[in-house]
Amino acid sequence: MIVLKLGGSVITEKDRPETLDGEALEAAADAIETATDEDLVIVHGGGSFGHHHASEHGVSTTEGTGDAGAALEIHGAMTTLNRFVLSRLHGRNVPAVPVHPFSAAHRDEDDELTLPTGQVQTFLEEGFVPVLHGDVVAHAGEGVTVVSGDELVAELARDLEADRIGLCSTVPGVLDDDDEVIERITDFEEVRAVLGGSDTTDVTGGMAAKVKGLLSLEGQASIFGPEALEAFLGGGEPGTTVE
Amino acid sequence: MIVLKLGGSVITEKDRPETLDGEALEAAADAIETATDEDLVIVHGGGSFGHHHASEHGVSTTEGTGDAGAALEIHGAMTTLNRFVLSRLHGRNVPAVPVHPFSAAHRDEDDELTLPTGQVQTFLEEGFVPVLHGDVVAHAGEGVTVVSGDELVAELARDLEADRIGLCSTVPGVLDDDDEVIERITDFEEVRAVLGGSDTTDVTGGMAAKVKGLLSLEGQASIFGPEALEAFLGGGEPGTTVE
Repeated sequence: MIVLKLGGSVITEKDRPETLDGEALEAAADAIETATDEDLVIVHGGGSFGHHHASEHGVSTTEGTGDAGAALEIHGAMTTLNRFVLSRLHGRNVPAVPVHPFSAAHRDEDDELTLPTGQVQTFLEEGFVPVLHGDVVAHAGEGVTVVSGDELVAELARDLEADRIGLCSTVPGVLDDDDEVIERITDFEEVRAVLGGSDTTDVTGGMAAKVKGLLSLEGQASIFGPEALEAFLGGGEPGTTVE
Repeated sequence: MIVLKLGGSVITEKDRPETLDGEALEAAADAIETATDEDLVIVHGGGSFGHHHASEHGVSTTEGTGDAGAALEIHGAMTTLNRFVLSRLHGRNVPAVPVHPFSAAHRDEDDELTLPTGQVQTFLEEGFVPVLHGDVVAHAGEGVTVVSGDELVAELARDLEADRIGLCSTVPGVLDDDDEVIERITDFEEVRAVLGGSDTTDVTGGMAAKVKGLLSLEGQASIFGPEALEAFLGGGEPGTTVE
């Protein structure tokens, strides 16, 4: 089973609010079309759809809002992007179905995320391709907060015991000081100097947090750029392998 | 805590595909506005939105489809109706949030429904009013099948230990042979003769099934018409009380 994350910055124009990168999304959908014999769960980020509204309302993974209107503005932007993704996949006969985290997940007082995955598992067994996305979720004591695509990937990979995890982002892999792709990471200490701390300030976590998260998973993970998506889905190990 | 079902036939024109009964929905929203100090979960039926598409694709609570397009057509009609409901509630400052069963629930091989409710519980604790609806859900061996509003009401009432359950339908209560409202039902045998078997053929269950389901719950249930919604939410016992 494969969990594939399509970075928000891959499929949207990150600097222009609610703007799709149509060409990039079409290319990603073309690659996914080649892999329909795999059990595949897709998670996409928010890119310029979610982040824009989240920051406008001061909502992050830990700072929430109790305003239903604000929550629905962020959620609505994400479901708009999700519909674009679904429609491009349906255009290629990929049997994609939406799973909105806002309807399924929540956080407790300790910010711990609970994402029940029985529905995702059943969709997979029935031949569908579930598509989740960064979203807002109910959060005890905070109203609603952001859940990032990376958090969802980790939850899904753990719960569904994913064999392979793919993070398709705008960079070709984790880069060293000379901007060369690091082929393999098995220990965070190997790359701490290059990546810095894990406390990068991107609302949904920087590369250090991504690598740390992936190292904690059982499955083998790859971090690669859009041009390598088909190779990854075909069983290759493009970009940086984390295990 | 109150679980309130708004019947699909109350808020839509059941005989005309995808047609809202705008006046009835406005009146229901007015009544709900008076009850915002209660912990309230709302479930609405499909009415002419869901049923139309479900029967077109031959999908019921037990007969499914593996066609993602068909599943999304039914689901899409239901979320359209859900957006109407949410917007009328937001217009009255009711902090309503959507919980789509398609994203959260599933059925196993024995048709048993699993609906995790941690997100609903957290929404309630945070002051929101979760709004669920009849929908399609992943179903082991069937693709996706219909989940009825009544099933969701039963699951929610059980899991969240609802004190009161309200079924707002187009009739003023359970009617006896003289079309008079039966005030109280504590045993199905009392009303079997009037209601017939529990195997009525409405895709989402007739009155006999409703009463049987309600009798199996801990909380006190009321079956009443739209004109009695405000009285119910105010603590009254309009229509037929089932306990």
